[in-house]
Amino acid sequence: MKLIALGKQLNFLREIDRLKSVVRQSPLLDKSRKENSAEHSWHLAMYALLLHEYACSPVNTNRVIQMLLLHDVVEIDVGDFPIHTGSSSELQAEQESKAAERLFGILPPQQGNEFLALWQEFERAETEDAKFAKALDRFQPLLVNVFTGGGTWTENSVSFEQVLSRYGPVIKRGAPLLWTECEKWVTQHFAEQGSGTLGQAS
Amino acid sequence: MKLIALGKQLNFLREIDRLKSVVRQSPLLDKSRKENSAEHSWHLAMYALLLHEYACSPVNTNRVIQMLLLHDVVEIDVGDFPIHTGSSSELQAEQESKAAERLFGILPPQQGNEFLALWQEFERAETEDAKFAKALDRFQPLLVNVFTGGGTWTENSVSFEQVLSRYGPVIKRGAPLLWTECEKWVTQHFAEQGSGTLGQAS
Repeated sequence: MKLIALGKQLNFLREIDRLKSVVRQSPLLDKSRKENSAEHSWHLAMYALLLHEYACSPVNTNRVIQMLLLHDVVEIDVGDFPIHTGSSSELQAEQESKAAERLFGILPPQQGNEFLALWQEFERAETEDAKFAKALDRFQPLLVNVFTGGGTWTENSVSFEQVLSRYGPVIKRGAPLLWTECEKWVTQHFAEQGSGTLGQAS
Repeated sequence: MKLIALGKQLNFLREIDRLKSVVRQSPLLDKSRKENSAEHSWHLAMYALLLHEYACSPVNTNRVIQMLLLHDVVEIDVGDFPIHTGSSSELQAEQESKAAERLFGILPPQQGNEFLALWQEFERAETEDAKFAKALDRFQPLLVNVFTGGGTWTENSVSFEQVLSRYGPVIKRGAPLLWTECEKWVTQHFAEQGSGTLGQAS
């Protein structure tokens, strides 16, 4: 029985190797290439491990880490939906939901259901853990754009107001102190746009 | 005070972006390129989340995940030491130790010390959590080689006996049931070497 479960678990671990080939819009900080969703998930888990004290309310850091580790696996089936290209969020939600059922369905039922529930909790963004996880998922790409002097904002001609409206509510809701800092960096970035003098967080 | 800490934390999160550019010997399962150490760390954390019941003794899964998330950051300074090329383990340990001090030294002191201690615990491989984490760090690349029909074993002309001696003790110590399965796959792989019929874990 245990070996049947192991076979399913290994099939899942094998399947999610494909997340390493899902390319996101954000570049690496050295701009050598675009980031993929597997390494993005690792980086976000590190964000959670380090920054949990900035959550709006106390969170279970380990649950947040688990959510962030698996939040993007649905992209194996549906790809990454970039924040700045205005894809249909209803269609996206439906496709991602199907992908979650297929992928977590590879696992032994109990484990698959636990993971599916954790993924759904992240997507709904109603619990404190999920609100903080969502905030980090928005905070990290914002930081990449600040650190690289524009990133996806420059590529997509995104305005100051669009940055505030696309990142602000989610980050502010889950990590208000981080958003206060973001506002300063974003304001400075757009004030100095093109000068290349920004990008220091310290 | 909190903002000074945040500056240090963001500097660390910025520095570790470089782990995405540290290339390992193992390929992705689709063989399109070599794996990098950031996405490897993500994959290992998922292994821990899924396979904790195979640990030799009960483990704190969340500590194992944390260890695996940060176990490779030292490679930012010293690169990856491949298992099959016989690098000096004493020199390696010394270099990695210096790298850990530099990298975790970027963080606020308390957090940096906690991370350094967790990394040292992983390296020493004496606690149950660390033994299991080490076992997974050896199990995942073994699986990649099984799944890809040879991988680094073929590239480095590694023999059946070398596989048993280089992977066996660490995996067996931390996850004996997983090693029992590995022995079957490895035996089958070397029996069918070159036939390309292996690679199914279920």
